[in-house]
Amino acid sequence: MPDNLARKPLKGDLFAKKCPSRQVLNHVTSRWGVLILVALLEGTYRFSELRRKVDGVSERMLAQTLQWLEHDGFVLRTAYPVVPPHVEYSLTPVGKEVSERVKLLADWIEANIGTILEFQQEKERARKRQI
Amino acid sequence: MPDNLARKPLKGDLFAKKCPSRQVLNHVTSRWGVLILVALLEGTYRFSELRRKVDGVSERMLAQTLQWLEHDGFVLRTAYPVVPPHVEYSLTPVGKEVSERVKLLADWIEANIGTILEFQQEKERARKRQI
Repeated sequence: MPDNLARKPLKGDLFAKKCPSRQVLNHVTSRWGVLILVALLEGTYRFSELRRKVDGVSERMLAQTLQWLEHDGFVLRTAYPVVPPHVEYSLTPVGKEVSERVKLLADWIEANIGTILEFQQEKERARKRQI
Repeated sequence: MPDNLARKPLKGDLFAKKCPSRQVLNHVTSRWGVLILVALLEGTYRFSELRRKVDGVSERMLAQTLQWLEHDGFVLRTAYPVVPPHVEYSLTPVGKEVSERVKLLADWIEANIGTILEFQQEKERARKRQI
């Protein structure tokens, strides 16, 4: 990878197996990545608050996903030197940009889940009529 | 689940563990779901064409992901009664809507991968200076 990325802007290609954009996509769209990014759009969270907000996530997976997102430059981890330790997570400006796109998708799914469930039920009824 | 979904539109809550919107999110953002949906925005694909387009996907995972997306009402599978079999995949109108949101995210990642890699390299250089 050349050292002069700032001068030669790269364009990723998600359809290419070895493009590093694939790994970033996998972090952002990982099982918990989407929910963490949408939650952090609302503001700063402590680890335990985030764990309560993202219902069902384990401590291990929350820590792992936060590490990925920190590594990609989307999440800022701030540790305050106090006892007991106080660690906060927030979005960087770049993280806000990606999270806004993620939220558009999440909002669409929440708004359209009724239509999707209705479609599934109709297909199931049609299948039963054929039996 | 009530039978009158059309009259009582549901609103999903992705932060609730048991909300069915979570499963739809997992299908759409699955490892291959994103790339399949973005590819199908361009038009109809046969299975083998889609497999070539989505570099790295196995036959098994492509078939599995297409089944999820068909089940959710996003992908239409059309089998023509010819020999040899001819099966085509395309987006439904609802599938187009969700894919457009997915593409906004995918495009952002492709456009910003240079910034992300640069950030990662800078952090790595800072880490090495500290050793």
